Amino acid sequence: MTVTLDRRGLLGAGVAGAASVGLSGVAGAKPVLAKGMRKADFKGAIAAMRAVVGPEWVFADEDAVRPWRKTYVPDPSGRHAPVGAVCPGTVEEVQALVKIANQFRQPLWPVSTGKNMGYGMTSTAAPGQVVLDLKRMNRIISVDPELCTALVEPGVTYRQLKDYLVEHNLPLWIDVPTVGPVASPVGNTLDRGVGYTPYGEHFMVQCGMEVVLPNGEILRTGMGSTRNPSAWQAFKWGYGPYLDGLFTQSNFGVVTKMGMWLMPAPPVYKPFVVRHKRVEDVAKIVEAMRPLRISNIIPNVVLMMSAGYQLAMFQRRGEIWDHPEPVTDEALMAAGAKVGLGYWNTYFALYGTPEMIAANEAIVRAAFAAIDGEVLTEAEMQGNPYFHHHATLMQGGLSLEEVGIVRWKGAGGGLAWFAPVAPAKGNETTGQIALAKQILGRHGFDYTSAFAIGSRELHHIIALLYDKSDPEEEKRADACYRELVAGFGERGWASYRTGVHAMDLVAQQYGAVNRAFNATLKHAIDPNHILAPGKSGIA
Amino acid sequence: MTVTLDRRGLLGAGVAGAASVGLSGVAGAKPVLAKGMRKADFKGAIAAMRAVVGPEWVFADEDAVRPWRKTYVPDPSGRHAPVGAVCPGTVEEVQALVKIANQFRQPLWPVSTGKNMGYGMTSTAAPGQVVLDLKRMNRIISVDPELCTALVEPGVTYRQLKDYLVEHNLPLWIDVPTVGPVASPVGNTLDRGVGYTPYGEHFMVQCGMEVVLPNGEILRTGMGSTRNPSAWQAFKWGYGPYLDGLFTQSNFGVVTKMGMWLMPAPPVYKPFVVRHKRVEDVAKIVEAMRPLRISNIIPNVVLMMSAGYQLAMFQRRGEIWDHPEPVTDEALMAAGAKVGLGYWNTYFALYGTPEMIAANEAIVRAAFAAIDGEVLTEAEMQGNPYFHHHATLMQGGLSLEEVGIVRWKGAGGGLAWFAPVAPAKGNETTGQIALAKQILGRHGFDYTSAFAIGSRELHHIIALLYDKSDPEEEKRADACYRELVAGFGERGWASYRTGVHAMDLVAQQYGAVNRAFNATLKHAIDPNHILAPGKSGIA
Repeated sequence: MTVTLDRRGLLGAGVAGAASVGLSGVAGAKPVLAKGMRKADFKGAIAAMRAVVGPEWVFADEDAVRPWRKTYVPDPSGRHAPVGAVCPGTVEEVQALVKIANQFRQPLWPVSTGKNMGYGMTSTAAPGQVVLDLKRMNRIISVDPELCTALVEPGVTYRQLKDYLVEHNLPLWIDVPTVGPVASPVGNTLDRGVGYTPYGEHFMVQCGMEVVLPNGEILRTGMGSTRNPSAWQAFKWGYGPYLDGLFTQSNFGVVTKMGMWLMPAPPVYKPFVVRHKRVEDVAKIVEAMRPLRISNIIPNVVLMMSAGYQLAMFQRRGEIWDHPEPVTDEALMAAGAKVGLGYWNTYFALYGTPEMIAANEAIVRAAFAAIDGEVLTEAEMQGNPYFHHHATLMQGGLSLEEVGIVRWKGAGGGLAWFAPVAPAKGNETTGQIALAKQILGRHGFDYTSAFAIGSRELHHIIALLYDKSDPEEEKRADACYRELVAGFGERGWASYRTGVHAMDLVAQQYGAVNRAFNATLKHAIDPNHILAPGKSGIA
Repeated sequence: MTVTLDRRGLLGAGVAGAASVGLSGVAGAKPVLAKGMRKADFKGAIAAMRAVVGPEWVFADEDAVRPWRKTYVPDPSGRHAPVGAVCPGTVEEVQALVKIANQFRQPLWPVSTGKNMGYGMTSTAAPGQVVLDLKRMNRIISVDPELCTALVEPGVTYRQLKDYLVEHNLPLWIDVPTVGPVASPVGNTLDRGVGYTPYGEHFMVQCGMEVVLPNGEILRTGMGSTRNPSAWQAFKWGYGPYLDGLFTQSNFGVVTKMGMWLMPAPPVYKPFVVRHKRVEDVAKIVEAMRPLRISNIIPNVVLMMSAGYQLAMFQRRGEIWDHPEPVTDEALMAAGAKVGLGYWNTYFALYGTPEMIAANEAIVRAAFAAIDGEVLTEAEMQGNPYFHHHATLMQGGLSLEEVGIVRWKGAGGGLAWFAPVAPAKGNETTGQIALAKQILGRHGFDYTSAFAIGSRELHHIIALLYDKSDPEEEKRADACYRELVAGFGERGWASYRTGVHAMDLVAQQYGAVNRAFNATLKHAIDPNHILAPGKSGIA
């Protein structure tokens, strides 16, 4: 039975999407309660939550919840808008909230800082959830400068951690994702996000977790539950089944502490960009890059940024292309050439002593000379804002410049990342680019992309940029994204990550046994399904 | 209800241990059926298994099962001896066997090749199990020389994989554990074993699994269940909760295929040993080594081998020490000095171009000169069998020389590895060495050890060497091992891995919530508890 909150004017799913608020990035329609919940349960849960965290940290009326409804992903029917938010300050409060959630069957949607721009922010996969916003739990619990490790709470931001290291004069680097300053290492790692340094595969350099389970108990993974967990941040696996993976991209627990490895600052850091002019050049760039990455001659996560993506950081669409149909490669190349960009701009760096860098630079230059790449460094690119941006990121520096892309089509900006995975082989790129352009073009959207090579895999990172203030365009973006998922999936390219609006779709592409297995785990760990139902397609 | 197989003279647990066969390495007492199983069920299960795999691949009478009862770990009561063995040839047969196991409630104990010397071989954690021996499933399914990956079945040995690479002239290295030639990459990785090259953390470089679940369904992890899994061996995580960790050190499924990353052969390989003379020097070695490992200047898993461990490879105890009490450090140092060993012999290697190696060698030499280490290479150590052994291992070469240590106390050799974990800090070593000597000495055993640094963690690897042909000494070894687990655990040093004889004990040290969580998973995934009950302390 679905009962809607009619006193507050909230509408059932049948007429959802009718009343667009029209505010940029805020879901238009009114949220509904979770399936089977009665209004009295919701009220009871909210009252109980207020008793635990204080009334000032529970948000349940429409204006108060508005900040948690802001999202860049398409949500034409408003089904991803949360019904409330609660902000605990301690692990004990999280435990108490989980118990309340079980008591009233009120689903909670945990977020760390909720800044995963283009994946959904704090909007939820299924309707009727209260955001469990952990931003107040923002202690850096420990940093060990000898082991180069940190233990942090979910509300800690990359900015905060970086400031801590600088303030304490510790020669340790962090690795940041795109919106590092406002994002959370815990949140990004649990989403299996990626950065730009040799520690860019965040889940790989994660070490130890504390998790509040759906039954309210506290589980510490790895060495964290032993008597004197001095190795908690030193050794990832512990004994018995390795559990940390269960708490990534899932809804099996609330991670309240996370260990992470930090990179010792190298003596020297040297960033590079290689420019290529033609869209089809990316195939040979991938071929040249794969052996360099696998042999660790280039040790960091490599980004091949298209001119379209780079230009969108600092320019608006109308400055480059004044037509309704998708922007052409020619127009992007011409605009890119004016500001020192190729069609593909491949960013990587070398780290180490001057001798080590010299030894590897010779190898790298030879590899890119062989495929007609222009290899450029600070010497040639000084003052170029694009080079400066990536040179900052590849040393764990902070930047919000990429947020600019959401304004490509105007102030009502919308963004959904589409991120299919392939093996790191050049011949994977051609078909993907053609398919992406075909689907995006059919819906009237531009092809705005990058490729990333972590180690042996290729991520195609496509920014679906649309004007969220236009309800028709939002619907079109939603349809386009679904077609991208389906079309790429048919060709064997499934996504490694997606926004709350498409989690079911992507999960389906990983097969029936996988879904059934996850459902079995979910039901065993969270029998009342009170944690983030719908996350990664797990009800 | 426990009913014993009395017709075959098998005894209940109450009188177990009465009849020691006295054969080296073979469990003495007669095995009993699993708890609650009737003899008719066992017979029914065996008959059904014979119908699936053919009678020649099912072993259920006492003589036939003998090869699977061989074990080096102490088992004075014989409770770890299996009641049978079955050897399927295909995944479909594994599925059928799992269904039979459910039907008759006959537990199965999966092993890949069962050569984890010192951790239990094919003996089982709890009584009454039939070994599911996967050695016949030994196909190398694919090797991708561009991505540097392989997909193998559990029966594939490191020797077989190495031969394949040589035969196909592929410039790829494998990483082998101690008994590489006979061991299985799948088995070792699932045990979270470790090797000696930069790819020495085997679970870290594992990528994709196929698992037969206890319900007989086939789960493929990572990208393996997508429509065209070309990225199965390229990208570890897939979408949704990362599940591979669940199938390591556990009993949640039968892994029938596993992907792994292979290291591209470097242009040059240069092995080193650093000699230190005194037992207490290990503290400063760890301090010098930690930053070199964390910064990846030394990229491989580093072993600090004690003279005692090294000598035991090629010599018998009586040649060095002719007294019943534990061998002294002085005696080991004197014997070691004669064959070119220090008390600690720290093995590591550099890999890369000559220029890269030269750049890093200078840093490494300076670091060890500062702590009075003798840094030696092929130039000085040519012909030294200990150096040659590790020089072989650190390039993924194969050797069975370390098996020699089980004969330290004679032909009836017994061995149990004790492997507590600590952060990689020098001050962790002193207390551990004192405690180990104290407990081992109290039971009359020698301190035979190594330390390993994977990345930020320190493994203390202690070989409990005893004479298994002496029932009194086997009992003493069992008691000693339990005291080691308890004594180290109290000080916060829990083990990362243990033999079938101590899995419960070690699991307890990881806390009640952890155990309850694993039990919840087990019951959900394997409701009849037919897969390897007792593994890692999970019933």
